[in-house]
Amino acid sequence: MLLATVVGSGIMAEALAGGNLAVALLGNTLPTGAILVVLIGMLGPVSGAHFNPAVTLVFALRRDLPAGEAALYVLTQVAGAIAGVWLAHLMFDLPIVQFAQRVRFGPGQWVAEATATFGLVLTILATLKARPAAVPMAVGLYIVAAYWFTASTSFANPAVTVARALSDTFAGIRPADMPAFILAQLSGALLALWFAAWLLRTIAPEDRS
Amino acid sequence: MLLATVVGSGIMAEALAGGNLAVALLGNTLPTGAILVVLIGMLGPVSGAHFNPAVTLVFALRRDLPAGEAALYVLTQVAGAIAGVWLAHLMFDLPIVQFAQRVRFGPGQWVAEATATFGLVLTILATLKARPAAVPMAVGLYIVAAYWFTASTSFANPAVTVARALSDTFAGIRPADMPAFILAQLSGALLALWFAAWLLRTIAPEDRS
Amino acid sequence: MLLATVVGSGIMAEALAGGNLAVALLGNTLPTGAILVVLIGMLGPVSGAHFNPAVTLVFALRRDLPAGEAALYVLTQVAGAIAGVWLAHLMFDLPIVQFAQRVRFGPGQWVAEATATFGLVLTILATLKARPAAVPMAVGLYIVAAYWFTASTSFANPAVTVARALSDTFAGIRPADMPAFILAQLSGALLALWFAAWLLRTIAPEDRS
Amino acid sequence: MLLATVVGSGIMAEALAGGNLAVALLGNTLPTGAILVVLIGMLGPVSGAHFNPAVTLVFALRRDLPAGEAALYVLTQVAGAIAGVWLAHLMFDLPIVQFAQRVRFGPGQWVAEATATFGLVLTILATLKARPAAVPMAVGLYIVAAYWFTASTSFANPAVTVARALSDTFAGIRPADMPAFILAQLSGALLALWFAAWLLRTIAPEDRS
Repeated sequence: MLLATVVGSGIMAEALAGGNLAVALLGNTLPTGAILVVLIGMLGPVSGAHFNPAVTLVFALRRDLPAGEAALYVLTQVAGAIAGVWLAHLMFDLPIVQFAQRVRFGPGQWVAEATATFGLVLTILATLKARPAAVPMAVGLYIVAAYWFTASTSFANPAVTVARALSDTFAGIRPADMPAFILAQLSGALLALWFAAWLLRTIAPEDRS
Repeated sequence: MLLATVVGSGIMAEALAGGNLAVALLGNTLPTGAILVVLIGMLGPVSGAHFNPAVTLVFALRRDLPAGEAALYVLTQVAGAIAGVWLAHLMFDLPIVQFAQRVRFGPGQWVAEATATFGLVLTILATLKARPAAVPMAVGLYIVAAYWFTASTSFANPAVTVARALSDTFAGIRPADMPAFILAQLSGALLALWFAAWLLRTIAPEDRS
Repeated sequence: MLLATVVGSGIMAEALAGGNLAVALLGNTLPTGAILVVLIGMLGPVSGAHFNPAVTLVFALRRDLPAGEAALYVLTQVAGAIAGVWLAHLMFDLPIVQFAQRVRFGPGQWVAEATATFGLVLTILATLKARPAAVPMAVGLYIVAAYWFTASTSFANPAVTVARALSDTFAGIRPADMPAFILAQLSGALLALWFAAWLLRTIAPEDRS
Repeated sequence: MLLATVVGSGIMAEALAGGNLAVALLGNTLPTGAILVVLIGMLGPVSGAHFNPAVTLVFALRRDLPAGEAALYVLTQVAGAIAGVWLAHLMFDLPIVQFAQRVRFGPGQWVAEATATFGLVLTILATLKARPAAVPMAVGLYIVAAYWFTASTSFANPAVTVARALSDTFAGIRPADMPAFILAQLSGALLALWFAAWLLRTIAPEDRS
């Protein structure tokens, strides 16, 4: 559903925006943020609402999720993401199977992906500790911001990256550019895991005193 | 009030947008999402805030609503929706009685309506179980997303579909295209009822352990 | 502060929008909705956060507010609204004292104002009864919707109407058009008072059974 | 992170908006409001989530924060803000070190900055007293409004002002215009401190009776 929204609203927004890419990006940003709030809010009690292999990896490393289960999560995330892209193509009467040609390459893009994923994982870990009920809204708003502050429109999710490589539309990414994006995302996630452990440990004693 | 917003903001947005349909759709999306949050929040305690025959059907099948009462709900929903469209026409000095000419037809559109209604009913059933107080916001945000990710701008509501057939404006739908839309919506709703029963049953034991 | 936002963001939005009035209206809508949520949330505990003579009239008629105090509220509302408009002019280096020339006239506009105020008062009364903590968000979202679904961009507030007559900008209204707007607003408010009494009385017994 | 968002989304929005500055400002406003909600929500429990020397000054004057700690906060705020601007430049493949040339000067602008900071500090102090959990959302929404109602797009933060002087992009401010902005901001903050003390003291007895 997330990917159908990301790709579907990208197709819709680009088709309608008449060349004004800022309007197209608004039409891509708001639906994505909105569906994230809905999906995390409703699926959180079911599965923890992980749609992101980078987040699943972090939870596995924190031993909040057994490694085997985490691997199944990642497989399901990628499969679900691809199904979402294909559903979007089906709804818009486009060829189902496509490969993206949009170039997304360069150090700026990689720093952007690492930054975006760092911020996302930090948001999840810190909000989960401080106010768990606010996580859906925090993630949705974070992604709204990250779409705009990163030069790469913040994929910040390896499963999303794989799936978007299969869509030759507004939201696509050339398959060849995929590995560097995923590597940057995982680096950002690991950095956030380490940083959050430090940031949230140092303040815990103050909170309890 | 919902229909006055959907149709009224569609008229306003199209009139002002100077041909940029993405901007027009933003001006149609945000008011619709906003009024849904308001209406569901304030009428939920009165009547359950059903404005959607597909949702009412699902609650009747779950035996949360007696069949006779459900039928009255549906009649009221359609009557209220038509009154809302006519109020919008009155406010914008347009002829009250109109018939839409906008074509909305084809497999992509039907898959889109089924998907949109599936997602809407799943959102309602899952959020109602997990955090009932979050339902108004979840529905509003879901519709914001669904306006954009579906090729059909997500009617996802048979009463809305009937009413929009009576408005020859941005939000209209040709009467001849109406039955297929309603059929797709009901299919999506029934699929969501079945899927939610499975999804939410499998996790209930975990939650209580 | 409300009027500084309504008028200031109107000036800003029109200046920047390059003739695309839908974009200008978005730039006028979002800030107005946002500041309403903030102001009602923070001033609610101080004074009830009435900024609207139509709402104050309704509360006086419900005997929630003594008539004398209500009259002082209305005077303060009008004075504050005018001060806000003048502050907006000052910030944008415009002449402080102005009179609007923008025509807002006709039955469509009056039905729109009555509808908008009816909806606003109903939203306040119903949400206040069902979930008082949700009132700030409900009013903000309602106004976002009403800006778009009404042909008049929903003044829905006599003090705002008076103040906007003093601004020859995007948000202005010709002084001669003011009385009919205020009359329509008060009619809508009284209708909502009567309707809410009926709507909310009929359901109270069910709620308690 | 705040500055990376303010500057990054400014670059992105201007690049994509094709000359429509209202669209560019929307693309700058929404991410900034969103990231503020996220950051204040998640860092509030860590450090109080002060990112603003004007706010830190107010808390030091209220003796909620020791003077030495406040000074360290301000240094960190400025350093973090500059790092954020540089990160945004890095992500968009721009020269890291820049000096803004955008003129922001004149009485209208200074009144705007004083007003914006007055409103921000009043929002924080009043919301903190009435409903502390609502502070992140209140600040985010306030800034969304203030971006539009002030002629200066509401810097309202001395650290942000310094950092934006180091970015020759949409969000920049000429270094020479910086001191007057900061002076106006501090004036607004002090006025709000004095006004809030009066406003919130007069109602406290009523609340407790």
